[in-house]
Amino acid sequence: MPHIDPVKLTADLIQCPSVTPEEGGALVLLERLLSDAGFSCTRVDRGGIANLFARWGDKSAAKTFGFNGHTDVVPVGDEAAWTHGPFSADIVDGIMYGRGTTDMKSGVAAFAAAAIDFVAQTPPDGAVILTITGDEEGDALDGTTALLDYMEREGEQMSVCLVGEPTCPNEMGEMMKIGRRGSLTCWFEVTGKQGHSAYPHRAKNPLPAVARLMDRLASHRLDQGTDHFDASTLAVVTIDTGNPATNVIPASCRATVNIRFNDLHSGASLSEWLQREADEVAAAFDTPISLKIKISGESFITPPGALSDLIAKSVHAETGVTPEMSTTGGTSDARFVKNHCPVVEFGLVGKTMHQVDENVPIEQINQLKNIYGRILKDYFA
Amino acid sequence: MPHIDPVKLTADLIQCPSVTPEEGGALVLLERLLSDAGFSCTRVDRGGIANLFARWGDKSAAKTFGFNGHTDVVPVGDEAAWTHGPFSADIVDGIMYGRGTTDMKSGVAAFAAAAIDFVAQTPPDGAVILTITGDEEGDALDGTTALLDYMEREGEQMSVCLVGEPTCPNEMGEMMKIGRRGSLTCWFEVTGKQGHSAYPHRAKNPLPAVARLMDRLASHRLDQGTDHFDASTLAVVTIDTGNPATNVIPASCRATVNIRFNDLHSGASLSEWLQREADEVAAAFDTPISLKIKISGESFITPPGALSDLIAKSVHAETGVTPEMSTTGGTSDARFVKNHCPVVEFGLVGKTMHQVDENVPIEQINQLKNIYGRILKDYFA
Repeated sequence: MPHIDPVKLTADLIQCPSVTPEEGGALVLLERLLSDAGFSCTRVDRGGIANLFARWGDKSAAKTFGFNGHTDVVPVGDEAAWTHGPFSADIVDGIMYGRGTTDMKSGVAAFAAAAIDFVAQTPPDGAVILTITGDEEGDALDGTTALLDYMEREGEQMSVCLVGEPTCPNEMGEMMKIGRRGSLTCWFEVTGKQGHSAYPHRAKNPLPAVARLMDRLASHRLDQGTDHFDASTLAVVTIDTGNPATNVIPASCRATVNIRFNDLHSGASLSEWLQREADEVAAAFDTPISLKIKISGESFITPPGALSDLIAKSVHAETGVTPEMSTTGGTSDARFVKNHCPVVEFGLVGKTMHQVDENVPIEQINQLKNIYGRILKDYFA
Repeated sequence: MPHIDPVKLTADLIQCPSVTPEEGGALVLLERLLSDAGFSCTRVDRGGIANLFARWGDKSAAKTFGFNGHTDVVPVGDEAAWTHGPFSADIVDGIMYGRGTTDMKSGVAAFAAAAIDFVAQTPPDGAVILTITGDEEGDALDGTTALLDYMEREGEQMSVCLVGEPTCPNEMGEMMKIGRRGSLTCWFEVTGKQGHSAYPHRAKNPLPAVARLMDRLASHRLDQGTDHFDASTLAVVTIDTGNPATNVIPASCRATVNIRFNDLHSGASLSEWLQREADEVAAAFDTPISLKIKISGESFITPPGALSDLIAKSVHAETGVTPEMSTTGGTSDARFVKNHCPVVEFGLVGKTMHQVDENVPIEQINQLKNIYGRILKDYFA
């Protein structure tokens, strides 16, 4: 019977310098390990990015549990500021240091170890799929989406999926993520006509229109939140003119807003609203207003149900804590997986992610493997 | 009987390279000329600036006509772009080229020549005072104010004063200036607290307060103009944040407004209004707003009356044109003289002032001398 040590596996992965978009040896290592354990492995590389698809069990199984994660890491930043080599995986007083110790080589190690042990010890009536990408921290154009495209082509299907990102703010077990708000950025440019500030009637000042538009947008309450989401928010993040002369009316001004939105809105509905607001202010001030919108992600949710219950039960059994079902935070690859199947994120404490001296208590890695193992057992029970 | 050629005098002055703060020989030349003509001359130098006070007639005269002007000029800029040497005073086809040909060595030459001829030909029952400064184009801290301070100390008094700045937009004779609007600039800074744009409640965004304040100020109609003044205007000239990150709420934002105000307002009344507006918005948004105000000049006017009538009559007699009484335009030393006596500005066409190849038709210099001479004659008649 295999018994994979998730702490050693995390350390082995940390020692692969897989800063996006480098594979760094991490996926090669996992492919060998999973193949040896009877997983059918396929490298799904695209656009210079390495990705790994691994399945134990039948492709046509009725129940397939999926894990998703990434082995790429963000740059180390100022290496001189680290007290431990960022790729050394030093363990001091039960704490492992290194880039990716929380985000998220420990999570990949924990679910790979749990999956290998589980299928060997209690072979399920079903399949287990691991989708592991080398491009989550970058543009994510050829990462999890490449894996999902491959699965679509090949008829591969996960019934549910657990993303192993760190989700707990402070204490192990306290939070899972069942969805995320969407994010949209809009860049406005208001164009007027330059002139002398003593003769405003001969110029066309773009700034009053900018002020009015930003006041309208910032004052508008988008909603008051929904059952599983906080209220949507709009932040005016910058207004810039760059006019150094107090006696000159400037020719143009730019402003940017960022919206985090819940399931009452979509990128399209908000784009329409922003365009309408801009048009109304442009008409009122007789000043052209152009806008450019980027929708970074739509909001999504896997409503509380079988999958979140399963996770909550296992987390409680291993930690004594019942995880909150949250939709806060930035983006993750769950935004892609949600188009494929119900998806929930659960992982360890993310406090030090992306920081110098990123680190994880090795006890958390063991706990996480146990939680993932218990989830698999309960899912196929 | 002397007959001073104002064209030759203008040329002699142009050849003195008196870029602020350099005297360049211009005031030395005028002092000699005026002394020879019986004027009592005093150099009133202060803070490295040369100024000339000249009086013909008794200090205690009941009627004293004053002229004010400056011999300093703005820099030549790109000398290679000039088709004539900026200090050569070349005359081609009746046009004299050079820095200061319009602003305002021609004006000084015209009133000096007119005054010298007038007192020699028809010695008046009164006095004629010339105040000529070397610091009008610079900070103007030690120019006409130094001359006025000197006059105050010495008990020197002008009954009225004519400033010889170019005042006509396009045609000789079409405009005099009987006052100016005031000018005030206010720099606002709104201070908030930086944070992540996904969690605006943990930050304090300064931009909504900036947008609201600028919208309020820009929407406010200060007045609808008065008998001799256009409506006061407020221009928001810049709003700047400098935040490059769309996922970050910035810590602060700056905005600047410039107000040109008529005689319904003062720098103090507007400062109070701006402070009140800032305080109200700061309270509404619970965000500190600081402001810094600079009053460049209060509005002033010499109401239409004897002095403007005198000037209008002479201008019409020499040019056939009745000058409009205007209060438009930027600042001039009239803003200092108005504290001393009634003051009006009249001079030639200012179109090329401060430009490359600044130039004046020599006919205009002769006309201007004739106008000034006729004003003197009529004033003392």
